[in-house]
Amino acid sequence: MRDERVRLGRQTWQFTGDVRIVSSAVAVGPKEAQGPLAKEFDLVFDDLYLGEKTWEKAERKLLELAVQKAIDKGALANEEIDVIVAGDLLNQIISATFATRSLQFPYLGVYGACSTSMEALALAAALVNAGYASYAVAACSSHNCTAEKQYRYPTEYGGQKPPYAQWTVTGAGAAVVGKGARGPRITHATIGKVIDWQQKDPFDMGSAMAPAAADTIATHFRDTARTPQDYDLIATGDLASVGTPLVRELLAEMGYDIGSVHRDCGLMIYRPDQGVFAGGSGCASSAVVTYSHIVNGLNNGTYRRVLIVATGALLSPLTYQQGESIPCIAHAVALESTATAKEGSA
Amino acid sequence: MRDERVRLGRQTWQFTGDVRIVSSAVAVGPKEAQGPLAKEFDLVFDDLYLGEKTWEKAERKLLELAVQKAIDKGALANEEIDVIVAGDLLNQIISATFATRSLQFPYLGVYGACSTSMEALALAAALVNAGYASYAVAACSSHNCTAEKQYRYPTEYGGQKPPYAQWTVTGAGAAVVGKGARGPRITHATIGKVIDWQQKDPFDMGSAMAPAAADTIATHFRDTARTPQDYDLIATGDLASVGTPLVRELLAEMGYDIGSVHRDCGLMIYRPDQGVFAGGSGCASSAVVTYSHIVNGLNNGTYRRVLIVATGALLSPLTYQQGESIPCIAHAVALESTATAKEGSA
Repeated sequence: MRDERVRLGRQTWQFTGDVRIVSSAVAVGPKEAQGPLAKEFDLVFDDLYLGEKTWEKAERKLLELAVQKAIDKGALANEEIDVIVAGDLLNQIISATFATRSLQFPYLGVYGACSTSMEALALAAALVNAGYASYAVAACSSHNCTAEKQYRYPTEYGGQKPPYAQWTVTGAGAAVVGKGARGPRITHATIGKVIDWQQKDPFDMGSAMAPAAADTIATHFRDTARTPQDYDLIATGDLASVGTPLVRELLAEMGYDIGSVHRDCGLMIYRPDQGVFAGGSGCASSAVVTYSHIVNGLNNGTYRRVLIVATGALLSPLTYQQGESIPCIAHAVALESTATAKEGSA
Repeated sequence: MRDERVRLGRQTWQFTGDVRIVSSAVAVGPKEAQGPLAKEFDLVFDDLYLGEKTWEKAERKLLELAVQKAIDKGALANEEIDVIVAGDLLNQIISATFATRSLQFPYLGVYGACSTSMEALALAAALVNAGYASYAVAACSSHNCTAEKQYRYPTEYGGQKPPYAQWTVTGAGAAVVGKGARGPRITHATIGKVIDWQQKDPFDMGSAMAPAAADTIATHFRDTARTPQDYDLIATGDLASVGTPLVRELLAEMGYDIGSVHRDCGLMIYRPDQGVFAGGSGCASSAVVTYSHIVNGLNNGTYRRVLIVATGALLSPLTYQQGESIPCIAHAVALESTATAKEGSA
């Protein structure tokens, strides 16, 4: 018998109304275009400025283009989009706001650092499932140069980095969520708590975020009575090479062996020889990989069931200067293929 | 016959499930405590630092205290709160994040500048109405000194301001939303679009935000088939003395005379002789007034039906420096008294 509960446990929402990712699209910069997933990206730019005067205007353009492309791929008119849930890493989430000014959708701005991608998708799915929107867009962006100058040093300064630092992905991803006849089904979302293990090195995001990812994944398993084996992919957002072994170890201690199905979007988007230190980061890391490779894989039956766990480090340069540790959060969304299985029955 | 539709038009959500503000609370600083609404505030501090080392830590404490007080007033345990939807004006919404780290609720961070208060309340109501949470907290904060140093000049610099500038409210407000037997009913939310009339003076927020407020109010009237006369109070968040006549004029041009029922929270919270220039601003302006005076008025039957329209200016110092105009947004939430009318029948 089908479980029609809307909520499982305190933190997990169940979408019972056949909510789908009707269409999705991504736009990326030059380094991402040289990575292993390049052929799955919709829009690729070889100029970090995209012909704009500033990197911030370039990031906004990436987001606008990804959203518009997603809507076009869904063969929808802009007037059919009832709400956009969007955010980015910049102060006052200016990329999302200014992109939405152009698009003229009713707008809900969200911020969860690199967890923004799945926070937006969870809320968009909840709004569609409950009937507040027929079609909702979930979208986010990041840009290597805008993030560097805001969070670290002036980009031109060329500051040295430790090998465990990460490389912010330049890109944007968007999903159109609706109750449709096509696209992967969004079945669950698990909303994270703020987890802080008193890590204070702002270059070491992987170590800071791994406990938040482990907490959300374990909560998801408990709430849904699922195990790692129920998924053929559990994709964390941007733990990269430092956080990846940590999240596996933490979950192993809780009795969950995710090793055989776990991959990290920050490691999927670049090759190790691309000079990206420990791997990719930024909310575009999970958004770009999810809204291209993972959605494609669910649509063609390569993946049957996937859990995306976007991880965010919720610090600011100011809280770091005031001696604070790095609070982190992770939100998870479960997707299920509706494609006919390639061989055998589902 | 009762209208059971979940959505009216593209932008308005209708909450059919008897969703209430079960309890609410506010915490404020010294200037607010000298204003005309002071006796309705729950927690009042005569020190802008609240005994903390920095203004940012003080703002976080205001938010933590307001949230905890709201939960206590509702006679609920913290474990009964399924999600908090919260934000503030600081980069990376650090007040909301760090407050939530202490409180350990599943957390959705939102950003809508000074519209954050009603964005959070609209989402909390939607999540409760749809069953994703039994109790959700909506909360936000602002602090005069943290906002000044981030958006304008170092606070100690004492920069001069034009008379049409506004004074950021130091305070926090929180509402516990649930399906309960008590408290005002949350009946509708109207989600705004980004409206930008190319105003570029970052001191003149009132002029920039008035068109967004007018657009959302007019949309609300159209979607709900209501008129200004259906409300005994339409409270904008922080248009202050410059934006207040503008929003009335703009709506008059659209055929809506709100003059007799309209008040602005930024003008309600201070007396004109308090040295606040054109009046209060900040997301705490609407949150503090709504979660004290307005909720009290709905609970004691002084108000029968109120529309809160929180207005946000979505600029950043960086977009200003890059020559951009100020995009604005307004979100509206309708509240209805469930108290027995003082005289006559409702």
